[in-house]
Amino acid sequence: MSPTGGRHFLQIPGPTNVPDRVLRAMAAPTIDHRGPEFAELTKALLPALGPVFGTTAPVVIYPSSGTGAWEAALVNTLSPGDRVLIGETGQFSTLWAELAGRIGLGVEVIPGDWRRGVDPAAVGERLAADTERAIKAVCVVHNETSTGVTSRVPDVRAAIDAAGHPALLLVDTISSLASIDYRHDEWGVDVTVAGSQKGLMLPPGLGFNAVSEKALAASRSAGLPRSYWDWAPILEANTRGFFPYTPATNLLYGLREALAMLAEESLPAVFARHQRHAAATRAAVRTWGLEVLCADEREYSGSLTAVLLPTGHDADAVRRIILERFDMSLGTGLGRLAGTVFRIGHLGHFNDLTLAGTLAGVQMGLQLAGVPIKPGGLDAALDHLRDLG
Amino acid sequence: MSPTGGRHFLQIPGPTNVPDRVLRAMAAPTIDHRGPEFAELTKALLPALGPVFGTTAPVVIYPSSGTGAWEAALVNTLSPGDRVLIGETGQFSTLWAELAGRIGLGVEVIPGDWRRGVDPAAVGERLAADTERAIKAVCVVHNETSTGVTSRVPDVRAAIDAAGHPALLLVDTISSLASIDYRHDEWGVDVTVAGSQKGLMLPPGLGFNAVSEKALAASRSAGLPRSYWDWAPILEANTRGFFPYTPATNLLYGLREALAMLAEESLPAVFARHQRHAAATRAAVRTWGLEVLCADEREYSGSLTAVLLPTGHDADAVRRIILERFDMSLGTGLGRLAGTVFRIGHLGHFNDLTLAGTLAGVQMGLQLAGVPIKPGGLDAALDHLRDLG
Amino acid sequence: MSPTGGRHFLQIPGPTNVPDRVLRAMAAPTIDHRGPEFAELTKALLPALGPVFGTTAPVVIYPSSGTGAWEAALVNTLSPGDRVLIGETGQFSTLWAELAGRIGLGVEVIPGDWRRGVDPAAVGERLAADTERAIKAVCVVHNETSTGVTSRVPDVRAAIDAAGHPALLLVDTISSLASIDYRHDEWGVDVTVAGSQKGLMLPPGLGFNAVSEKALAASRSAGLPRSYWDWAPILEANTRGFFPYTPATNLLYGLREALAMLAEESLPAVFARHQRHAAATRAAVRTWGLEVLCADEREYSGSLTAVLLPTGHDADAVRRIILERFDMSLGTGLGRLAGTVFRIGHLGHFNDLTLAGTLAGVQMGLQLAGVPIKPGGLDAALDHLRDLG
Amino acid sequence: MSPTGGRHFLQIPGPTNVPDRVLRAMAAPTIDHRGPEFAELTKALLPALGPVFGTTAPVVIYPSSGTGAWEAALVNTLSPGDRVLIGETGQFSTLWAELAGRIGLGVEVIPGDWRRGVDPAAVGERLAADTERAIKAVCVVHNETSTGVTSRVPDVRAAIDAAGHPALLLVDTISSLASIDYRHDEWGVDVTVAGSQKGLMLPPGLGFNAVSEKALAASRSAGLPRSYWDWAPILEANTRGFFPYTPATNLLYGLREALAMLAEESLPAVFARHQRHAAATRAAVRTWGLEVLCADEREYSGSLTAVLLPTGHDADAVRRIILERFDMSLGTGLGRLAGTVFRIGHLGHFNDLTLAGTLAGVQMGLQLAGVPIKPGGLDAALDHLRDLG
Repeated sequence: MSPTGGRHFLQIPGPTNVPDRVLRAMAAPTIDHRGPEFAELTKALLPALGPVFGTTAPVVIYPSSGTGAWEAALVNTLSPGDRVLIGETGQFSTLWAELAGRIGLGVEVIPGDWRRGVDPAAVGERLAADTERAIKAVCVVHNETSTGVTSRVPDVRAAIDAAGHPALLLVDTISSLASIDYRHDEWGVDVTVAGSQKGLMLPPGLGFNAVSEKALAASRSAGLPRSYWDWAPILEANTRGFFPYTPATNLLYGLREALAMLAEESLPAVFARHQRHAAATRAAVRTWGLEVLCADEREYSGSLTAVLLPTGHDADAVRRIILERFDMSLGTGLGRLAGTVFRIGHLGHFNDLTLAGTLAGVQMGLQLAGVPIKPGGLDAALDHLRDLG
Repeated sequence: MSPTGGRHFLQIPGPTNVPDRVLRAMAAPTIDHRGPEFAELTKALLPALGPVFGTTAPVVIYPSSGTGAWEAALVNTLSPGDRVLIGETGQFSTLWAELAGRIGLGVEVIPGDWRRGVDPAAVGERLAADTERAIKAVCVVHNETSTGVTSRVPDVRAAIDAAGHPALLLVDTISSLASIDYRHDEWGVDVTVAGSQKGLMLPPGLGFNAVSEKALAASRSAGLPRSYWDWAPILEANTRGFFPYTPATNLLYGLREALAMLAEESLPAVFARHQRHAAATRAAVRTWGLEVLCADEREYSGSLTAVLLPTGHDADAVRRIILERFDMSLGTGLGRLAGTVFRIGHLGHFNDLTLAGTLAGVQMGLQLAGVPIKPGGLDAALDHLRDLG
Repeated sequence: MSPTGGRHFLQIPGPTNVPDRVLRAMAAPTIDHRGPEFAELTKALLPALGPVFGTTAPVVIYPSSGTGAWEAALVNTLSPGDRVLIGETGQFSTLWAELAGRIGLGVEVIPGDWRRGVDPAAVGERLAADTERAIKAVCVVHNETSTGVTSRVPDVRAAIDAAGHPALLLVDTISSLASIDYRHDEWGVDVTVAGSQKGLMLPPGLGFNAVSEKALAASRSAGLPRSYWDWAPILEANTRGFFPYTPATNLLYGLREALAMLAEESLPAVFARHQRHAAATRAAVRTWGLEVLCADEREYSGSLTAVLLPTGHDADAVRRIILERFDMSLGTGLGRLAGTVFRIGHLGHFNDLTLAGTLAGVQMGLQLAGVPIKPGGLDAALDHLRDLG
Repeated sequence: MSPTGGRHFLQIPGPTNVPDRVLRAMAAPTIDHRGPEFAELTKALLPALGPVFGTTAPVVIYPSSGTGAWEAALVNTLSPGDRVLIGETGQFSTLWAELAGRIGLGVEVIPGDWRRGVDPAAVGERLAADTERAIKAVCVVHNETSTGVTSRVPDVRAAIDAAGHPALLLVDTISSLASIDYRHDEWGVDVTVAGSQKGLMLPPGLGFNAVSEKALAASRSAGLPRSYWDWAPILEANTRGFFPYTPATNLLYGLREALAMLAEESLPAVFARHQRHAAATRAAVRTWGLEVLCADEREYSGSLTAVLLPTGHDADAVRRIILERFDMSLGTGLGRLAGTVFRIGHLGHFNDLTLAGTLAGVQMGLQLAGVPIKPGGLDAALDHLRDLG
């Protein structure tokens, strides 16, 4: 119920704006999940899903949130007391670490300042020191949704290899998949964790695990109790086009449509679009005289930008004004960033003029909230959009 | 199929962006148009429709475009050879005049320069001179969609009254209804013509005639052949909740939802929102150094703004660039305005940030097309939106 | 709001049950009706529409009900005072005749008993006697929706030819198109009138005229006033993919989808399906000991069956019980058939089990209403469905 | 893609036919799951959900299948090595038992013949013998979806009480909730497990746990590892209208609509409708001379009927014929019932005429498959429907 007419601007970093094509696809009648038409759906979906992960390996689909897919990655590959190494990048790496601890894993965190990605060198050092190979998995959040920082996964891979360490590499791509270039196979990732509600442009309700050969081998001896998340019966049933328990059929219809849309635009074009929008957003932020939270330009996120407010200004007050006056939702500061940061989502089903509207709303909201900004931020973004079409 | 991801910006002055609430309402199953559930629908719709026209008189709904409703207004009230007086305001007044001629009416046009509304004084003079009362109806396009000029209907009414002339007053509100303040009863209008696809936020497919007592009386002796458009059987069937031929049921579902949305926002708020967006748009146009087509500030349109390009620049080339680069549709110059004018629709289901995105696209498109504009147009619009919230 | 859970059975002879595929297609956002995407839509639609009419001639699409398409057929081809010959087949032929009279045509009716189609011999005799060629058009309702009788159009054509008479042949296919075999070109029809809400499986709101060369030639000199219905500007604009006034865009989306569905099933299969369901329905009616209204077995309708009740029983009372108890809408008796007949629609998006449910509801409703029927009607229908699959 | 036109008959015992009202509700845009509008949604949903479970206790909603909700009930209340007692009623009780074993619980099964519900006396005896209170939970499938047998939960409760045993009572209502009378509070159930895709008339994708005080107390000391399924953070976040991880927003929209529909019809009417349809179905089966799988008339299921075929006839061959010829999906025989049983779902959004169509399809399919049946089954069902309206 908007304060004005018109469509809500959902510019949190996910769930993202679901294209109406996808919403309509999801409104088709639910079918028999054990019938031949369902088998055709599965057999069309799975091969179309791999390329989005950059993999020819199997991708497991769960009726779950992305959080469930985090849990799935761990319980399929590890045993009670196993040690995992997690790079602290922000709120979501912290939550994943807590989850790991909660289900009985030993958790070791490489500390971070929430403005940078995982340090590949630190990973390499820690693994080199782990002569007993106690660490069984390295967990990396590819794009940290709480900070807008994209970790350099290939460099982390290289560091693991340089250390000659056998740990699995588990990567969360919840807010990067289908928005930021990602290559499960080429980068040697063992489990890629994803969700439906960001770059895949779907409502929430599906979780994903892309699974390497090595991860699959690990799952055969992994000892954590598992049932719902167990890859084996799913992969087995998938070969016949089915699932071992009732799948979220209508979200799968949506997934089929979203994959078709991504293929129509082409993944390279999708990634380029996100980079362009991210660069335009940063141009606006800097012209306003504000600081982008991400401190390393190699790690700028293509899917969201977290903006630091000057001391004494409350980011949630800015967000509230923007919601009330301009009917736009922005992301709040999470965890230790509460109140000092707001986040602009520019991912998913999104284009230049929606970005322009978004940045216009941010600019006006900052002004209304009394945050001292220099003029011209929106213009700087438009210069970027116009000249780098 | 957009060149980028994201939602198309449909910023022509109609059809307008249909709210997804309305689209979903229209997706309900078609029902028996002779059954009790349909009668309930009609009996809920009609009383909710009157206030939007500012009337307690009956409103006739046709399965037709607005063009059909033009024809209906004429054939119900006039006889072959009757004379109508039409103020030339632009392409649509011209088309209405042509239609009148085509169906056997005598047409007299008060010439205009397509930058102003109907001149009430000229109407008064002409009627005063019509001592034989040969003129049976005065036709006014309230908001001329081809120019963005809103005629002053109350002043026209006053001029007719001052002349003591019995002519009917027929008013086209196709692009003003539910966007710009309009009062069928208070302004003494005899037939108000409207369509579904502008301020009513529906897809095209419904035409409307609001009908005064005087118009109804005229219809009893009017001699033009009519059947489909005949008010009498429709008004008769409506009393029982039905229609004499199959109505456009699913569009009626959409109408019910759209009327609910208008009531939720309240008509005064709807009108104020349109005025505010129109003023912000003009602020942008002027800051760019371009000319608003409408030449009389009393007649600025709340629902669209037509922009004149400097000599030597092709408005359609600008529109093409904007469509290709930014996936936004703008209105073309119609008739004699072809190539020199483009039109920005800012009506219907629309809000501040969508306007900001719209004007950003116009600004970038003008720059890409090489039209010399001064910077700051969008900023001027945002100043307006921000400070007059 | 059904008295029980579950989906309403809409078994009137139109509007028919709209497939959810079509409803979803219609829920897509309205687009610019003057833009390139719209032109693509039109250019895909029109060639796909012809085969459904059995024609390579142009088909004109109106935002209107079928009633409007009746009017269009007349005003485009005839002049004031022209004489038309209409075969009385029931309520709809009567309404068409009244319409013709209302717009200034001379109307001559070949009387009928509402249980038979147009008598080709009678047409031939009348035309042979018309040595002055005063009759300009012969109007035939192909499938009379009020009676469930299908006139033999090829025989009417043959009778006209045998008389060597130049009259145009205008045929209403509102409740037969895309349900019962029909061939505009092969049968030498000049104007075919149709609507969206029956065999085309759309909501109401589109009217159609398929137009022969001869009809087109007639339109050039036809003198009835016309504007909205005028073929010429529509055909002209159609060549560029557009319409002269705003078309009912979202219904056109639905039409595209419905044509795709018809093509998937194939028209011969569609026609065979309707014949099979009609035969099964008649088997039920006869087994119950009731009378099918249609008196000539060559003229049984494939799209609906009108059932005569024994004297002393009120067909509307039966319908009311069926609506209240079983949430099914059946067609009422129209005009002189009020109270004595009810009509079962078995056309459009319809299958064996829906027919079984429909006939079960009719059987139970007849019993509840105290109409004396023999048992076994539904079983007889099922025998037919099962054995002639 | 049906072999004929018309709507597919989805008569498996779930997923059920989703009402188009619910599908349309789910097509609304996804909103910010951390914003005020979402909080309002949650705060409206949760109080409306309790009555469907017959409880004032909290109900936890998961983005998951029903299988996930099974796992949730166990991991929240039990510790590794804890013993659970499960009554074998069919395939689903067996799967739940396997799941329990897989996650580290000791499982004791009370054997059954897959034609009866859980034997309350056997439960009582086993618990009485468990003097060491090793059994921590009794698991009952209220309505066994594989057999169409409804266990007598109140009698099981009484048996537990009579034994004075402190075991928790965990009940699976996946195919009974909102179809068959069920009372979490009154019957003293500790955890009720449910899913979205049966009586709740939603697509699959939501799992539920209704949680008694005693279960909540147990969860505080339960030692099985848990994170995704953990009640505590969900219940905590729910108090503010939120969820600890991204919920399946659009399914929640559907849930809101489905709960409104259930309230409109009223739960007692919903239960009565299901009983009536189940009785009519059994009347058909018996008249055909076939056997209903459920062997105890106190335990007939209101939501599905499993039909035993005579020896030598393949139930899946019958189902295949029915799918191909009549576009209807029926439930297959699961586990040890494969080939000998098919299942007719008559639950959810369902009415008399759809049941008539369903049974007509079964009757014709049995005949086409050469299964020897006596005539009159469908008629017997109709007698029931007609006379017990």
